[in-house]
Amino acid sequence: MITKQSSIGIIGLGVLGGSYAQALSAAGYRSILGVDIDPNSIAWAKQQGWITEGTADSAAVQNCDLVICCLYPEVFVNWVRDNRKYFKKGMLLSDVTGVKRAVIDRVQELLDETVEFIACHPMAGRESKGIHYADANRFKNANFIIVPTASNSADAVETMRALAQDMGFKRISCLSAEEHDRMISYLSQLTHVIAVALMNADDNTHLAEFTGDSFRDLTRIARINEDMWPELFVLNKDYLIQDMDVFIAELQEFKELIAAEDIEGMRQKLIQSTARRAQFDKEA
Amino acid sequence: MITKQSSIGIIGLGVLGGSYAQALSAAGYRSILGVDIDPNSIAWAKQQGWITEGTADSAAVQNCDLVICCLYPEVFVNWVRDNRKYFKKGMLLSDVTGVKRAVIDRVQELLDETVEFIACHPMAGRESKGIHYADANRFKNANFIIVPTASNSADAVETMRALAQDMGFKRISCLSAEEHDRMISYLSQLTHVIAVALMNADDNTHLAEFTGDSFRDLTRIARINEDMWPELFVLNKDYLIQDMDVFIAELQEFKELIAAEDIEGMRQKLIQSTARRAQFDKEA
Repeated sequence: MITKQSSIGIIGLGVLGGSYAQALSAAGYRSILGVDIDPNSIAWAKQQGWITEGTADSAAVQNCDLVICCLYPEVFVNWVRDNRKYFKKGMLLSDVTGVKRAVIDRVQELLDETVEFIACHPMAGRESKGIHYADANRFKNANFIIVPTASNSADAVETMRALAQDMGFKRISCLSAEEHDRMISYLSQLTHVIAVALMNADDNTHLAEFTGDSFRDLTRIARINEDMWPELFVLNKDYLIQDMDVFIAELQEFKELIAAEDIEGMRQKLIQSTARRAQFDKEA
Repeated sequence: MITKQSSIGIIGLGVLGGSYAQALSAAGYRSILGVDIDPNSIAWAKQQGWITEGTADSAAVQNCDLVICCLYPEVFVNWVRDNRKYFKKGMLLSDVTGVKRAVIDRVQELLDETVEFIACHPMAGRESKGIHYADANRFKNANFIIVPTASNSADAVETMRALAQDMGFKRISCLSAEEHDRMISYLSQLTHVIAVALMNADDNTHLAEFTGDSFRDLTRIARINEDMWPELFVLNKDYLIQDMDVFIAELQEFKELIAAEDIEGMRQKLIQSTARRAQFDKEA
């Protein structure tokens, strides 16, 4: 079990890794190692008091009881391959990646039975990159998803649950990798693709002065981290393409109602969307 | 010219008509007639001090210097046909409808040269219906569009501009009917269609607990007035169907990039959407 005295390594001090370091230090964890290739990120984290030690050398994880990789998916898998030799016996490994099927098996295969990997997804992303945008306050309204497999121990799940609680996440849940990736495909990846497509379909920047809340709401997430998302889309492409097809078919159906001037058909669609959306307000 | 002493008639005391009455009475207009078939709406408006007189009888507009119809498009055109006989010489007529090409010519044809119609669109809609949801505070962040034609006088434009200023609108602009309808198609109608389609494409209400900001942002306007929007979609269907086709084509293109695992192609799309969206934040 991880305690406040355990040694925790955070790999990658970006916006999310920085927020983890911030949240864990604020929660009283005493030994937080930050690993990053950018000395400025380490200097910043130290200055804020978020880490007790910082280095660009991954070998430093050799004393860690828990290592959390805050890296993009492919970088994460490669980092594990390159640095597993430093993992101490009994170490717990976790991550923050936004897709799960594509990483869990690959990472578990890289590890022997002395190290356990427990996949997690803190749903607290934002469009800005880098530790200067780290803000653990965002965890207060965010979901933390633990994605255990048959190989995971109940102890690892409880450890991550306790850690997420200490970091202040609003809701902590467990999902299978398939459930997680399906959910993320519809609720997050599809919405980002829609926002990007709406922004790109036509250059309407000259209309900005006329924009009301609706267009702003729908395109807010069109400001997006261009280095991370394409990789996430590709790693979840089966579900995402399925969801895009279903959404496009629904749009086509609505278009036919407009073309046919089928007022009553549209009315029924709007009544349904209104009723469904109301469920989401209840859960808010 | 309309002054604070002029007699103003508001036809339809719904959420928008009610807000007009509220804003105009607050701005010091002394004579505001409210016409509505629902006696409860009239009673409410009177109780709030928003109107000085209320009736279900449209003949009461005979003393009005300015009449503003706060009705759905078809109801509006029919109301003008049925009640133009009561219009006094020199009366100014205005409206609030969300589409313009479909109403302006038809209304102007119904009027002789003694009455001028000046089309306006206060972009301050909301999903709720009825005077109890009226709230003139919403005008503070809203655009007011005046849509003059060649038949309109400069005086009528200035009158509506002054009125919109008195009601507290943030920005007042003039557009042609075509410009207005194109703008509304993309910025408002297309966004509502997308939100409705996203909500209807799949029943994901069981996922509500996992929903982050992005899905909530994109579907907020899926709670929608089912009586008004289908009519607006139909009355602007040429532009709207065009815009839906462009949007769907952009989605298809993005889908092909995902299928081809074209990371660099997606990166360019995301860079473009980020840059464009930044323009909208600047204008906010």
